[in-house]
Amino acid sequence: MKCRVCRAPAVLDIRRHNAAFCREHFVKHCRDQVRRAIDDHDMISPGERVLVAVSGGKDSLALWDLLVGLGYEADGLYLGLGIDEYSAASGRAARTFAGERGLRLREVDLALEYGYDVPGAAATTHRSPCGACGLSKRHVFNSVAVEDGYDVVATGHNLDDEAAVLLGNVLRWETGYLGRQHPILPASPGFARKVKPLYRLGERETAAYCVLVGIDYQVEECPMAEGNRHLRYKEALNLIESASPGSKHDFYFGFLARAADRERERRNEAGPEQDGAAYS
Amino acid sequence: MKCRVCRAPAVLDIRRHNAAFCREHFVKHCRDQVRRAIDDHDMISPGERVLVAVSGGKDSLALWDLLVGLGYEADGLYLGLGIDEYSAASGRAARTFAGERGLRLREVDLALEYGYDVPGAAATTHRSPCGACGLSKRHVFNSVAVEDGYDVVATGHNLDDEAAVLLGNVLRWETGYLGRQHPILPASPGFARKVKPLYRLGERETAAYCVLVGIDYQVEECPMAEGNRHLRYKEALNLIESASPGSKHDFYFGFLARAADRERERRNEAGPEQDGAAYS
Repeated sequence: MKCRVCRAPAVLDIRRHNAAFCREHFVKHCRDQVRRAIDDHDMISPGERVLVAVSGGKDSLALWDLLVGLGYEADGLYLGLGIDEYSAASGRAARTFAGERGLRLREVDLALEYGYDVPGAAATTHRSPCGACGLSKRHVFNSVAVEDGYDVVATGHNLDDEAAVLLGNVLRWETGYLGRQHPILPASPGFARKVKPLYRLGERETAAYCVLVGIDYQVEECPMAEGNRHLRYKEALNLIESASPGSKHDFYFGFLARAADRERERRNEAGPEQDGAAYS
Repeated sequence: MKCRVCRAPAVLDIRRHNAAFCREHFVKHCRDQVRRAIDDHDMISPGERVLVAVSGGKDSLALWDLLVGLGYEADGLYLGLGIDEYSAASGRAARTFAGERGLRLREVDLALEYGYDVPGAAATTHRSPCGACGLSKRHVFNSVAVEDGYDVVATGHNLDDEAAVLLGNVLRWETGYLGRQHPILPASPGFARKVKPLYRLGERETAAYCVLVGIDYQVEECPMAEGNRHLRYKEALNLIESASPGSKHDFYFGFLARAADRERERRNEAGPEQDGAAYS
């Protein structure tokens, strides 16, 4: 297996692109995909201030690293969810990453600043912790961005995330959510612009990126997400992808090319607050 | 586990309906679902002649049995595909079923009447056997129906089939096929009406129906369908269904309620010849 670009031994193959890359050109591939995502959708203009939603996992740290590498002024925001050792380790990963690179990591602790944490909210409301978590994240990331004058909030949703969210929305024909699922949600009064610059990269690629550039990320899945529908949709898509590489890509990009615009036209009430997507 | 209707011990539970039934009321449940499918879509009018596409499997034999039980004049048509012992056993199951019930089974042998069989066609064209098979079935069933004055061709597509076909069409955003996927395709010049009266029943239910009413069906899957995308889509949906009973139902019925009409409006070229569905 040789690098598509330089024919040196490859470190990773990407079956859906029918391509393999050496370390150097794989990193370039990731950067190119993010560059292209940003350019194709006018996600971030030169000189704008970016707030990266940082969980400490592979996606958000890869995203932050890639944005800084591309020259953007990007600060991180870590939200303490109060999920025991999982949250503690996630926070450490985020702090270590920022400290080693001299980047600015902001932190908000749900319990300290809002008086609740995710396990507590789930227990009190008898509802899924993922619902409380997603709502909290959207609220806090947006509030900090609006209050502190960031132009845009960037989240680490990758192709696997977007395809899984899309599958969930399609399985239930959530036409409202379908109309709002897009790599960019424009700003509106009280709401910062939201962008997903990793939507062209699969989660295997963001994990490999972290390993290859030396990012030490939180590898554990959230212990409260077990049984989460989103994870099951990913499994279902992985089953299809393994036999037909490119299925996820075709599903999500086909949606963007054909269905998304139609759904958006049909819905005028599209608001940035309910994009129907879990952040990873 | 007790029968929802009479509280006798149940023989089968149907998780998506949150219901269980004794033998008698399960059979009634199946008949009611087919009755409702036929009525909701005006599939068959009293006195019309029905041609049932019979493969010898659980779905087509259950369908034939149910249609006759509901009082329809229904003949069967078995198409010999030439797939070795699989076809031989399928044909025997169809003949035994018809013979025991005094029903009329017509037979067409692809090799004898058209000069090819499915394995041969696949080898010659270097394409999927399922493609040649589906095309042959659609052609032969329609031709016999038109030539011999049947009003309608009924196929045994069940809810699992329809949901899997829908998933495939959605994953590739096949908007043309999406527009044509419906429990009924009206007649047009040269084409008989096509109906799918089992679309409200899952394949677990059609199998249980056969066992409970004593229909001896071909239980083997077609040996040439291994690796078939349709089967993989079923696996993916089963994964989702097992954690969230009703997912398949909601997916397909949600499509019928919301998306199908819109797709049909968008496409005027809907023709009965390409419904994009494999028959089982």
